[in-house]
Amino acid sequence: MSLGEFDLIARYFDRPVRRAALGMGDDCALLSLQPGMQLAVSCDMLVEGRHFLSTVDPERLGHKALAVNLSDLAACGAEPLAFTLALALPQTDEVFLAGFSRGLLALADAAGCELIGGDTTRGPLNICISVFGQVPVCSAVTGALLRSGARPGDDLYVSGTLGDARLALEVFRGTVLLDGASFDAVRKAMELPQPRVTLGVALRGVASSAIDVSDGLLGDLGHVLQRSGVGAVVEVDTVPLSKVMRAQPLSLQRLCTLNGGDDYELLFTAPAVGAAAVAAAAAAAGVAVTRIGRITERGDAGGARPQLVDAQGRPVGHPERSFDHFRT
Amino acid sequence: MSLGEFDLIARYFDRPVRRAALGMGDDCALLSLQPGMQLAVSCDMLVEGRHFLSTVDPERLGHKALAVNLSDLAACGAEPLAFTLALALPQTDEVFLAGFSRGLLALADAAGCELIGGDTTRGPLNICISVFGQVPVCSAVTGALLRSGARPGDDLYVSGTLGDARLALEVFRGTVLLDGASFDAVRKAMELPQPRVTLGVALRGVASSAIDVSDGLLGDLGHVLQRSGVGAVVEVDTVPLSKVMRAQPLSLQRLCTLNGGDDYELLFTAPAVGAAAVAAAAAAAGVAVTRIGRITERGDAGGARPQLVDAQGRPVGHPERSFDHFRT
Repeated sequence: MSLGEFDLIARYFDRPVRRAALGMGDDCALLSLQPGMQLAVSCDMLVEGRHFLSTVDPERLGHKALAVNLSDLAACGAEPLAFTLALALPQTDEVFLAGFSRGLLALADAAGCELIGGDTTRGPLNICISVFGQVPVCSAVTGALLRSGARPGDDLYVSGTLGDARLALEVFRGTVLLDGASFDAVRKAMELPQPRVTLGVALRGVASSAIDVSDGLLGDLGHVLQRSGVGAVVEVDTVPLSKVMRAQPLSLQRLCTLNGGDDYELLFTAPAVGAAAVAAAAAAAGVAVTRIGRITERGDAGGARPQLVDAQGRPVGHPERSFDHFRT
Repeated sequence: MSLGEFDLIARYFDRPVRRAALGMGDDCALLSLQPGMQLAVSCDMLVEGRHFLSTVDPERLGHKALAVNLSDLAACGAEPLAFTLALALPQTDEVFLAGFSRGLLALADAAGCELIGGDTTRGPLNICISVFGQVPVCSAVTGALLRSGARPGDDLYVSGTLGDARLALEVFRGTVLLDGASFDAVRKAMELPQPRVTLGVALRGVASSAIDVSDGLLGDLGHVLQRSGVGAVVEVDTVPLSKVMRAQPLSLQRLCTLNGGDDYELLFTAPAVGAAAVAAAAAAAGVAVTRIGRITERGDAGGARPQLVDAQGRPVGHPERSFDHFRT
């Protein structure tokens, strides 16, 4: 059966909106913000072979496509409101669409983020989501979390554990072998990342800066350091590891956790006096949070490059560099 | 020279924002609406070979990619604020990027719509823009223009002229021959559409419904009729034609104007008593507007399919159907 564009949208994606003033079916969707709030917007484009493998379960792909966008809202401390989906498909594949929409809309429902519009077209598989959230109009106490707010003396934290998604990628690449249960666990980390939306909102007024770890800890920390004009010391042996990761050789652990990518955990800073507030926010969100270092004055030579030290405080070299779509 | 993703963004797209609270460089962009306003959002994905030809001038492509989105804002009567750009490129092509960004940002400046964020990745050429505007929170007098507001007795109007973009496409397809000057004129209509943003805003409180003509007059009118639960009579000989179109055979005129697509003119309705207000809005916006028919009760048999009549009021058959990305 061949479905037309409008039938396809209606069957898999069109649902009544509850929060938005107007959802699909007109030239624009309409969305109101609460008084005193501003719009937070992020946009990610996912391409087969670069952001996901052609063999991925469509339901997991639908989840991940929205998750990576929600993770950007989380990093700003924004409350999710709505999203648009633009989808290019080589052909009308109902098995793909049924699974994709199921995974996408399940996460949307869980996050309170409704699909309000989009576009579909025929073309090489491409998924582009724009996500909309709200944050209080900027103030030092309750505004959006930005990359630019880290200050010398702040503690550096990360949520969850790092590196499993990269470890799964290395298995797919054939450079690492894992037993079946271990592979399932890290593959789940890669394919079903959990955006830290509740934690992000809880960190408003608590964290001094935040970013989500999508390109690898060191690469993303570099963005914070550059925007904040500071340096950092990362105590690499304190970076939280999953059980599977703990069983890997140290060099692989460091590659995966420091330069892994696709983690979608929050990396954030907070003044040392705010440690109890950080712990309370983490507890309220039900997410583990680990202190992994501290913010320093910007070094003359180091620029935005953090210093790495081991448990004994000895310098550790940087593993290979962060992921960059246009260089790899 | 190989440019990294971040260098590429900085060189061609990153400019200071004036209206937005925060532009590129963080996890989200931040945008405030004026009090009493709500957000209007639209999203279009453009794929090579389907929405544009590989031979198109990159500067014109940049213009068109934003223009088709601004046209959706216009159809809602929304004032443009900002947009995001997600771009997949097969390789870093600086000639393409320089032209594309020039055309894109020139229209952005003209429309007062600033680039606040986006994403770039390597992949088959794909351009996905989400555009953000503001309209007053819905009221019958000044709210957004919707597809659902047409009422029996309303007049039916269209801006500008129709069909030139389709005529240009037929030349590219080899089914029509034009002299050089005529081809340049219709090719410009196809490649440099002028979104009717000023007209859209001026029609708030004047038009009862609106849509932009992107898939062809009859197809888009069908959406209005369906959403409004009404019928329509279109006087096909009153549909406004360019000078080049007037020189074409009648059958080609009707195909191009009624089912053409890619026009990006506004199709709208207004009560007969509002004719002077329509004329005033058109004059204020500097855009020609033509009455091409009227809204009727919904016919039992006709459904959302408009009746077509000629200058003598005789029924005219429908030319071939509207463009649908998943059927063609």
